[in-house]
Formats: sequence, C-alpha cells, structure tokens
Amino acid sequence: VTTSIAMLLFPRLTQLDLTGPFEVFSRFPSTAISLVAATREPVHSEGGLSLIPTATFSDAPQCDLLFVPGGKGVDAAMLDDMILECIRRQAAGAKWITSVCTGSLLLGAAGLLRGYRATTHWTAIDFLAQFGAVPVRERVVRDRNRITGAGVTAGIDLALAIATELHGSEIAARIEAQIEYGVKPLPERPSNNGRREAVAKAAARLR
Amino acid sequence: VTTSIAMLLFPRLTQLDLTGPFEVFSRFPSTAISLVAATREPVHSEGGLSLIPTATFSDAPQCDLLFVPGGKGVDAAMLDDMILECIRRQAAGAKWITSVCTGSLLLGAAGLLRGYRATTHWTAIDFLAQFGAVPVRERVVRDRNRITGAGVTAGIDLALAIATELHGSEIAARIEAQIEYGVKPLPERPSNNGRREAVAKAAARLR
Repeated sequence: VTTSIAMLLFPRLTQLDLTGPFEVFSRFPSTAISLVAATREPVHSEGGLSLIPTATFSDAPQCDLLFVPGGKGVDAAMLDDMILECIRRQAAGAKWITSVCTGSLLLGAAGLLRGYRATTHWTAIDFLAQFGAVPVRERVVRDRNRITGAGVTAGIDLALAIATELHGSEIAARIEAQIEYGVKPLPERPSNNGRREAVAKAAARLR
Repeated sequence: VTTSIAMLLFPRLTQLDLTGPFEVFSRFPSTAISLVAATREPVHSEGGLSLIPTATFSDAPQCDLLFVPGGKGVDAAMLDDMILECIRRQAAGAKWITSVCTGSLLLGAAGLLRGYRATTHWTAIDFLAQFGAVPVRERVVRDRNRITGAGVTAGIDLALAIATELHGSEIAARIEAQIEYGVKPLPERPSNNGRREAVAKAAARLR
C-alpha cells in the first residue's frame, strides 16, 4: 500500500458526500481507505443510511490524504473537540487535506483553511470567511495541499481531481468511464467477456 | 408513509449504484426505504464499503418501488434463486420496477425485461438482448413501469427522474439543487440561517 486515505465519519453526515468519493478512491491502485469515527459503532447519516467505521480517532493510522464530508451533523462536529483534534492530528501528517460540501466548514473550524481559497455547499459559502478562508464558487478548488469540493455530488469531481493529481489523467479517465460520469463519449463497442458466461447461464435458465 | 421503496443488497454490489439514488430517495416526502438482503449481516460492496440491511428477503414489506443496483456481484446474483424470487415477488406487487448499472441484467435474469426497452452500464449493453430486452444507450430509459439507468452515477439521474415522476418537477429540482447536481445555475445569495449560530460559535473558539 502506497497511499493511506482517512475518511471522517460523524453523526448526521451526508452519506453521498462520502460514498461518491469512496467509489472513486476504492478504484485507486495501492490504496487503503479507513473510515474513521469516535467508536466502531455504525454511524447514522442524515438520510438514515448507516456506515460502519473501520478505525477510531485513537487507533486510526496516520493518513496521506484526509477527507472530511459535510452534512447537518457539521454544526455539532464543529464544536466537538474530539473530532477537531482528530482532524488537526491527521492533517498535521497528511500530504493532502480535502473536504466536500460543508466538510470545509469543519476544516475551517479546525483552523486549517486560514488564508486558503476554498469552496463548500452553495448554501454555506458565506460562512467560509469566518474561518479566514477565501470563498470561491467553483465545483473543485485547490490551493496548495487543500482541495475542497462544492455540495454533495461535487465530491465525485473532487475525487476525480485527486485521481489525476495522485495517479495521472489516464487512470482518472478510466475511473470516470467506469462510473459513467461526465459527458465524454464512451467506447462504441464494449467488451466484457468476464461476464459473458454468467449472462448465458442466467438467460438459458429463463427460457 | 405513502411510498415504500425496497433497495436490493447483495455481495459485491457497486455501492455508489445504490448510495447515489438513496441520497435522492431519502429526500422524498413521506417515503420509507428498506435495504433488503438475504440476512441482516452487513453486505460488503465491491469497493469494500459495508452496508447494513434493514430487512430480509423473507420479512421485507411489499414495496411500491423496487430498486436493483449492479456490480461484479451481479454474475452470482443472476444465478441465485433466493435473490431472483425476492425480485419477482416484490416486482409483482410494485408500481415501479427500477435498476441502475448492471442491475438491469438482474431484472433481466428474473424475466422482468422481456419486450421492454432498457439500459445498463455501457460495458454490458450487449447482454440485454439475451433477456429479451431492447437495449437503448441513454442515461435513463423508461418503458411503461420499468425505469433503468446506465452505469453507476447514472443512478443519480435515474433517482431524479423518479422524483419528477412521483413528486413533480418542483421537488425534483429542489433535491437536484440540494445535492448540487447538474449544471443549472444555483441561487446567487444563499441563506442558511439554521447554521449561522454554530458557525459563529466555532469561529469564536478559533480566535
């Protein structure tokens, strides 16, 4: 494993803020992803989907890339010293510090966006300046080693930008085609021979 | 609750096929979502994220809308009678039968796409005809009460199309803005007063 990614979990996060980028990160070569929370109990997202942590604030390995999602739970998380300390500690050793949606408010509350250009969900853009950040209304904003994404689905764009940064544009384009994102034309003649036998069997049973 | 949505879980599904639409469905008014699997044990997705079922094949309530995701696990699922029976039973009482990505192969294997126009992940489009479906290369395809989406992220488009169908274009557009999807311009002056106090407190602690 060459890259360790830590994705923060907290109650009432917006699950798609995290699951979108997770889908992209999980297709990176030589990468381990930790879902880091206060405990190993399932964490309930805003919409009701539960996510299972794989590490806790105290036992999570030092990451190379820190990822912070947003959601209604950010309001409480911004005032939670356990969460802020975990973010600061991981950020101190990380090469990349990233967030999507209102996750950037949480990075801001941890003091990590002072003097950085950053973005967030469009409904929260006015709050960034209070943390000393320079608000930018773009889908993905990079300033030195901080990369922030706008609301929810912009996390997919953020993760693809990270793919390009870490693994180059060829791998990023391959993942983009795998998840059928964006508007680029796809190959006309698909081939997926690995699946051919299972389809033939299933179709034969149907007749 | 006026709408019951059943989302199928099986080992090695592509989690974003399901979590994208879940994010949209969870914002529907008066809707209950069940994650239906063989047992209540966590189901491991292709990329490693685990999802926790909320119902089993035997105790899931009859749904109004059936949703089937895709993924590498589809190959085994197409030959699994427990899964096919659950799909057929739920489909028989459902008003809407939907899938994203290679989930449509699973609907096909259950005999539910004979004579229907349908789509799937671009790498699998050639397989649809074996189940008697008429393959269409579009992001979302509706034919009577079958609505199928193309690969992975097309599930978000599928779910927004379902939002329009079930709740009208105003609610669909509101959800689309909430998750910052698509290219429509967003309001210039956001207001999010519910969050203002938490931000002020967090910023004050930082000084």
